[in-house]
Amino acid sequence: MSYIDELTALLRRSNCVKSGEFTLSSGRRSRIYIDLRSILSHPREFKKLISLCSQAIGEIEFEILAGVESSGIPLATALALENELPMIYVRREAKAHGLGKIVEGDFEPGRRVLVVDDVATTGSSLARAVEALRSAGLLVSDAFVVVDRREGAGEKLAALNVKLTPLATVDQILSRLNGGGSGC
Amino acid sequence: MSYIDELTALLRRSNCVKSGEFTLSSGRRSRIYIDLRSILSHPREFKKLISLCSQAIGEIEFEILAGVESSGIPLATALALENELPMIYVRREAKAHGLGKIVEGDFEPGRRVLVVDDVATTGSSLARAVEALRSAGLLVSDAFVVVDRREGAGEKLAALNVKLTPLATVDQILSRLNGGGSGC
Repeated sequence: MSYIDELTALLRRSNCVKSGEFTLSSGRRSRIYIDLRSILSHPREFKKLISLCSQAIGEIEFEILAGVESSGIPLATALALENELPMIYVRREAKAHGLGKIVEGDFEPGRRVLVVDDVATTGSSLARAVEALRSAGLLVSDAFVVVDRREGAGEKLAALNVKLTPLATVDQILSRLNGGGSGC
Repeated sequence: MSYIDELTALLRRSNCVKSGEFTLSSGRRSRIYIDLRSILSHPREFKKLISLCSQAIGEIEFEILAGVESSGIPLATALALENELPMIYVRREAKAHGLGKIVEGDFEPGRRVLVVDDVATTGSSLARAVEALRSAGLLVSDAFVVVDRREGAGEKLAALNVKLTPLATVDQILSRLNGGGSGC
């Protein structure tokens, strides 16, 4: 069984594959939607997903995991615990109270960060996170997502000199799903 | 060593205790601020915190952990992994695209949920989370936080018939910190 088969089976078992009429963040409509948040409610499947992701990021050089608010945070947390790595996270916008930061956590400038999110669509939120992390003095050359919907994220990040590594592309997953539609 | 001493030592070692001039979400000013996000960047300390929290929630009856966006999400994720429990999380507001949900995850109505956040101040975001979870058909009678700043959260939740269990109150922590100020 390839890791794509395993991932597809995990997504199916944890009710992540939804059928209906959905609007993606790119504006495009889709008949199939992969909702990775569902896997959080299935602890055994979530642990297996984290194990697959840990293998996939094993080749990337970095010191700190950075989760993108909000769906990237559970993934970064689980990867950090599994691999005993420090993590930080990037807010969509700064809080008005407290320390008013966009990048949360304890870090020194100059550290190499791996940006983590569940899904990449157009790449806008990943690109915003890269910029926030760089503004905070961190080095970013890699991003990791579980599923790349192939709606432009790879190209958008490449323009920022960031390489996007997905665990799988939407096409790889759809090809394993019976009666898969054209979107995700 | 009591668990409060252990918690205080963990917070200190992981750079969670900040001195300066801060504005709390209640509007009150404070000379000391406990930033629990810092502990995420210290994986060993974070694991010890999760172990203390797991003991503290051991007596509470619930089936699903619900993290409050955003700082409650890493905590709920780590507690879910440590205790093999399902988790969900509550957004501050619904997303405009995708499934447009406030409560993210896979669950059936009627389940008993423990609301989890890092810090309680006035209790506004905890109360909002309780209402969102109840609107989604879930049962909520308990909330857990690492630190209760004692700015009204306990009373606000009690008015909703929710019991707030903190790992520690700010006064317990401040009494262990040398030269601790009057706020947190």
